[in-house]
Amino acid sequence: MESESANPILVDVFRGSRVESCHRGAIAVSDAQGRLVLALGDVARPIYPRSAVKALQAIPLVETGAADAFDLTAGELAVACGSHSGERVHLDAVESLLTKTGLGERDLACGAHWPLSEATTRTLLRGGRRPRPIHNNCSGKHAGMLAVAVHLGLDPHGYEKPDHPLQIMIGRILSETCGVTLDPASMGIDGCSLPTFALPLSALAQGFARFGTGTRLTPERGRATQALMRACFAAPVLVAGDGRFDTIALRGLGPSAFTKGGAEGVHCAALPELGLGLALKIDDGAKRGAERALSEVLATLLPKARSVLASELRGELRNWQGLLVGRMAAGEALQDALGALANATRAGAAPR
Amino acid sequence: MESESANPILVDVFRGSRVESCHRGAIAVSDAQGRLVLALGDVARPIYPRSAVKALQAIPLVETGAADAFDLTAGELAVACGSHSGERVHLDAVESLLTKTGLGERDLACGAHWPLSEATTRTLLRGGRRPRPIHNNCSGKHAGMLAVAVHLGLDPHGYEKPDHPLQIMIGRILSETCGVTLDPASMGIDGCSLPTFALPLSALAQGFARFGTGTRLTPERGRATQALMRACFAAPVLVAGDGRFDTIALRGLGPSAFTKGGAEGVHCAALPELGLGLALKIDDGAKRGAERALSEVLATLLPKARSVLASELRGELRNWQGLLVGRMAAGEALQDALGALANATRAGAAPR
Repeated sequence: MESESANPILVDVFRGSRVESCHRGAIAVSDAQGRLVLALGDVARPIYPRSAVKALQAIPLVETGAADAFDLTAGELAVACGSHSGERVHLDAVESLLTKTGLGERDLACGAHWPLSEATTRTLLRGGRRPRPIHNNCSGKHAGMLAVAVHLGLDPHGYEKPDHPLQIMIGRILSETCGVTLDPASMGIDGCSLPTFALPLSALAQGFARFGTGTRLTPERGRATQALMRACFAAPVLVAGDGRFDTIALRGLGPSAFTKGGAEGVHCAALPELGLGLALKIDDGAKRGAERALSEVLATLLPKARSVLASELRGELRNWQGLLVGRMAAGEALQDALGALANATRAGAAPR
Repeated sequence: MESESANPILVDVFRGSRVESCHRGAIAVSDAQGRLVLALGDVARPIYPRSAVKALQAIPLVETGAADAFDLTAGELAVACGSHSGERVHLDAVESLLTKTGLGERDLACGAHWPLSEATTRTLLRGGRRPRPIHNNCSGKHAGMLAVAVHLGLDPHGYEKPDHPLQIMIGRILSETCGVTLDPASMGIDGCSLPTFALPLSALAQGFARFGTGTRLTPERGRATQALMRACFAAPVLVAGDGRFDTIALRGLGPSAFTKGGAEGVHCAALPELGLGLALKIDDGAKRGAERALSEVLATLLPKARSVLASELRGELRNWQGLLVGRMAAGEALQDALGALANATRAGAAPR
């Protein structure tokens, strides 16, 4: 981090009565006009959103008419927005999506990794098999991008390269939706070989407010984002997988909240009914910190989240014998910020 | 963390040209008298050392005469100091150790988890089997403790409880070796159900200086720590496993350095020839941060470490397609501290 001052502690990890570890980070909650109702830590420094913006990267899939042309199902749209676990249901959706475009697994540029689902990994291992590109958690996003390329008559080969017209289009959409200019110097390459552009958390939060509400988007784009969200609410297991955070949140909180996590401790959310968007990044990249911090903010803004995310909010840490050895808890700075956020939104300061 | 000021950034994680994530933490390097030659960050705050002190917890195995009485091999002593990967070689050593004491796997209180070794996990899965307590990375430590209990005529049942005479003895040895009083209120329960006592990094570093040199230990204890280190240098694969940091470091740097990592970003080391001990903790618990920071300190103190830990020091991050997408690097504060440490030790300030 270039800045002199450290971001505040968002999450403490206790063992016994002592803090054993902690996670610092920053959180922005914004409306579609860029008014921040929460800005904790450095929300101006650009961060790589990674897979947290997959739903934004999927906008052209609907906006260009590709989804209609290929008659995509809710599950196929949802898997294009998702970081899936590689379960059978995910592979079926990605295969179907690819087949509809006339392409196949060989066209995916995402590379292969063992499925996030332990059960699927075990099944592969029992059969003496290795993971394929379709098992990559990003294969749905890649299949969705290929569908756009085919629909627009672009050469699908090299669709993942930063200078391919498809990635240039996606970069423009990201820039317009988040209301910032993307600096080519702030481009990194993601785990699945696609470009990932660093953006301030404040811009990401604004972008998710627009994504959720359609405010400040063209009518066509607003319809596209609504269609993508509806698909994810209709098929939440396609966005992540059995037992995973985003699937639990989408299932329990949709249509009040759309959440999507990314690597290195990034998590974003749209809260359409409140007119808000949220983006957070844990400095050290820990998923446990991101999911815990997000749960706290959601529980402050949406009463239902207290029960939907109850297990996350209890934060119990158990050892190999099942003994309760510790717990995760909101850090003091986050607790204070949540108090202020609760007051602000109760007072009607949260725009709709 | 209770303290107001944040620990410095020890390790930066770059993606492209930008820092994506970072790891803060603290490092202490001390001689056996407690003189600190490096104190970066808060080295006075107690931290849970977790598995990093397994070799200290194994002292009574030699000191009480149990190792001689049961005619333990170097491999059996090494696995008692280790966090093993559950490979065949580890299971053989733990089984042999248990058999020599007349006990068995049913007596292990560590619980079961999938082996750290992917290859062993795959073998289990192919056979439709589940992990057993012997696959737990701590099973060697537990078997070693059981050997002490049997040798001393203590009831092995409940050997893992904080009030069992064995754990009271180990707590005393830890306290004497590190030169601090253990506060019962600072006790946590480890992943394997044993007590873990929070200690300042400065005390841990001093303890490892004494462990490595025998200075300020009784002659019997000094002989015990030498025997344990010799065993680990003779059988480095038993301390961790194929391809893991501590096995690479022990194999390449022994007898100049003994290293041992623990959960939640703790790593300790003894540098017997320099008369120094080292202890570090990454605030957020990340192993990648701990191993990178330790590599930097070792490379500063031991020229040979530059080649032995070359891959760690390059810190290349590659994605699923094998593309180089980023790198890990020492943070500015660590770089500055290493410069000062190099000057101090070159100037002969490091005591022998």
